[in-house]
Amino acid sequence: MSSSEVNACELCRSPGGELVEEDALCRVVRVPDSDYPDFCRVILQRHVREMSDLPPTEQQQLMRVVFAVESVLRHLYQPDKINLASFGNMTPHVHWHVIPRWSDDRHFPNPVWGTAYREKSPAREVVSTLHLCTELNKALNLAAQKHDQASV
Amino acid sequence: MSSSEVNACELCRSPGGELVEEDALCRVVRVPDSDYPDFCRVILQRHVREMSDLPPTEQQQLMRVVFAVESVLRHLYQPDKINLASFGNMTPHVHWHVIPRWSDDRHFPNPVWGTAYREKSPAREVVSTLHLCTELNKALNLAAQKHDQASV
Repeated sequence: MSSSEVNACELCRSPGGELVEEDALCRVVRVPDSDYPDFCRVILQRHVREMSDLPPTEQQQLMRVVFAVESVLRHLYQPDKINLASFGNMTPHVHWHVIPRWSDDRHFPNPVWGTAYREKSPAREVVSTLHLCTELNKALNLAAQKHDQASV
Repeated sequence: MSSSEVNACELCRSPGGELVEEDALCRVVRVPDSDYPDFCRVILQRHVREMSDLPPTEQQQLMRVVFAVESVLRHLYQPDKINLASFGNMTPHVHWHVIPRWSDDRHFPNPVWGTAYREKSPAREVVSTLHLCTELNKALNLAAQKHDQASV
């Protein structure tokens, strides 16, 4: 990719949300969205366009983080469904949306990018960023243990 | 899950598209969509609600197939972007959408579930199912080799 593409990339220039956790490969952020108060994103640190541009070990590491975020959101909120998506049509820098969904939220059963069925989602309390970070670290440690056990 | 949930599930009762390839874990199908002629889905064979309900090795195996489909669609069509998504709001049975996107297609830059910007996508030729199957098998073999090398 060109340096101008990197310079113009919103996810290279800014965190893309409130930082929850990060390592050398990726960061987890919370996206401010009043209808989806614990909408999270897992964002690759470096500018890469598609998942298939990553080596398999990094694909796996990144998806382990995505599924750890999914586990934490399920544990914290018991949503009716989790939605996962990686588009990048406007910002072609690998990032995953992880969204807890409820049957009475604004767009359900549509994806949150589809037609809304309700004026807004019911208010839902969310945990603090510190709490989310603590739970995520637990889930990531558990995932790393399972990975090590499976590799033995 | 209850047996009535399985009986009512569209992806337990039918292939969910034209079969391209399958194994014990999942199947790859082509979805008939005139705007997105090589829209593929990777569908788990058994009825499981969320990715985080699967053991890590099956999560990895399934994502390897998703990324192999992505690689094949990029190789065959050179799309402007690949979109990946797992929702299941209406059919809560793990399945991944893998969609090649072009800047002049019906919804771009929106997801295909969003507002359309054009009446329809320009016509695009697609390869035969046999050709897609052959390319997918090559990509899956390559992914398996890379996985074995990384595990050594």
